[in-house]
Amino acid sequence: MIPDDDRGFTLGDGLFETVLAEKGVLADWDAHVARLAAGCAALGLPAPKAAVLRARADKALITAGFAKARAAVRLTWTAGSGDRGLDRPTELKPRLVVTAAPAPAPKGPARLITASVRRNEHSLSSRHKTLNSLDNVLARREALQTGADEAVMLNLAGRLACAAAANLFWLEGEAFFTPALSCGVLAGTIRARVIAGLTASGREVREVAAPPEALVRAKAIFLTNSLIGVRDVSEIDGRPVPLQVSSLLR
Amino acid sequence: MIPDDDRGFTLGDGLFETVLAEKGVLADWDAHVARLAAGCAALGLPAPKAAVLRARADKALITAGFAKARAAVRLTWTAGSGDRGLDRPTELKPRLVVTAAPAPAPKGPARLITASVRRNEHSLSSRHKTLNSLDNVLARREALQTGADEAVMLNLAGRLACAAAANLFWLEGEAFFTPALSCGVLAGTIRARVIAGLTASGREVREVAAPPEALVRAKAIFLTNSLIGVRDVSEIDGRPVPLQVSSLLR
Repeated sequence: MIPDDDRGFTLGDGLFETVLAEKGVLADWDAHVARLAAGCAALGLPAPKAAVLRARADKALITAGFAKARAAVRLTWTAGSGDRGLDRPTELKPRLVVTAAPAPAPKGPARLITASVRRNEHSLSSRHKTLNSLDNVLARREALQTGADEAVMLNLAGRLACAAAANLFWLEGEAFFTPALSCGVLAGTIRARVIAGLTASGREVREVAAPPEALVRAKAIFLTNSLIGVRDVSEIDGRPVPLQVSSLLR
Repeated sequence: MIPDDDRGFTLGDGLFETVLAEKGVLADWDAHVARLAAGCAALGLPAPKAAVLRARADKALITAGFAKARAAVRLTWTAGSGDRGLDRPTELKPRLVVTAAPAPAPKGPARLITASVRRNEHSLSSRHKTLNSLDNVLARREALQTGADEAVMLNLAGRLACAAAANLFWLEGEAFFTPALSCGVLAGTIRARVIAGLTASGREVREVAAPPEALVRAKAIFLTNSLIGVRDVSEIDGRPVPLQVSSLLR
């Protein structure tokens, strides 16, 4: 339970991370902790102590009975309780909330639509994982309403940014492409892994500001995030995507 | 207390209203309820029942001991508890949280700075009072860090939008000006009152998409919101503003 004066609740003044736990092992733990700390620096919040995060994550997994299952640990770090209004309290006491939930692997490839809701590449909330996720909620809702699974979001300049809850990659010719972080993209842990893995195996990966038409020419499209890992896309806006390549990337 | 799986907390999936109560009388009540309902329609949430809101607001004032004071009643309406992830539950059960807090009248005129944080006129969160208020928090923080009281926010097109927690008006020549709603502006209850009052008394009010230089030429600048009413601005970015006219508008 959270006090109703928590600024995460009242104003979205906070950040979160979602970490995959498989049989109690927290994947990419250091990268998640570092990203949370970077978000804190951007928002002007003190960062949580890594050891405290770890102890709470382990405890949440055990308490929820997920120590042996595939689970998602969510770390939420808010500006804490405050008086009414926008101003943070003089003595800031951030609040940590850690929960664990089942995280079944996605079933089969995703069907995408291009959402009308845009990603604001000028906001800190596009580059950091803040509690201001309403635009993403609404983009995903558009996808579900049309029978798709996930939404592609363009940024305000009309360039490809990401999916509502995943990073976006595609294959065109012999090269892989993914939207550049400057397009309003969260620096995903799996995004970084995939770029590093492909590059190490001699493939070209270009971080680009690309128009949505790039996905029409794509031979393959896939999504990445900490919980789904790499997920193929089978269609976008009703058009089939020729190839599914995720099995080559794992 | 709020469950830690509330989507208002986890994702900012919700709306709020802040209503001025003076000696137990809720100001512009119908306008606040209507604005909340309009926000619900935009977000795809069922709207709360007006009678329930009213009963809870009255109760919050009495419980907090503010029935005879100047107080702020906050109505928060979220998408309720949900599973992990962006998707709303199939059976949506919104959550209503109503709190009351002291709302002392502001002391003297405000000193403004122009914030570097921009207002995203393309997001629903600029036109509706959603829980995604981090950009406003950060704009206000910029103001306080430079010794000012409040921040003017430009929209992404570089036009004047509003203050971090207020609507913006100025006087130039014989006409009053305020940013048009299409600039990414919340339709403030006092904004509407001031426009109606000035118009009724034969003054010209223009809703405009104006560059920040308009404030340099202004003879007077003032802010409006439900709790401060009308508040003069004494300086902006260190430059004094010639006139203070709020006393003429009350």
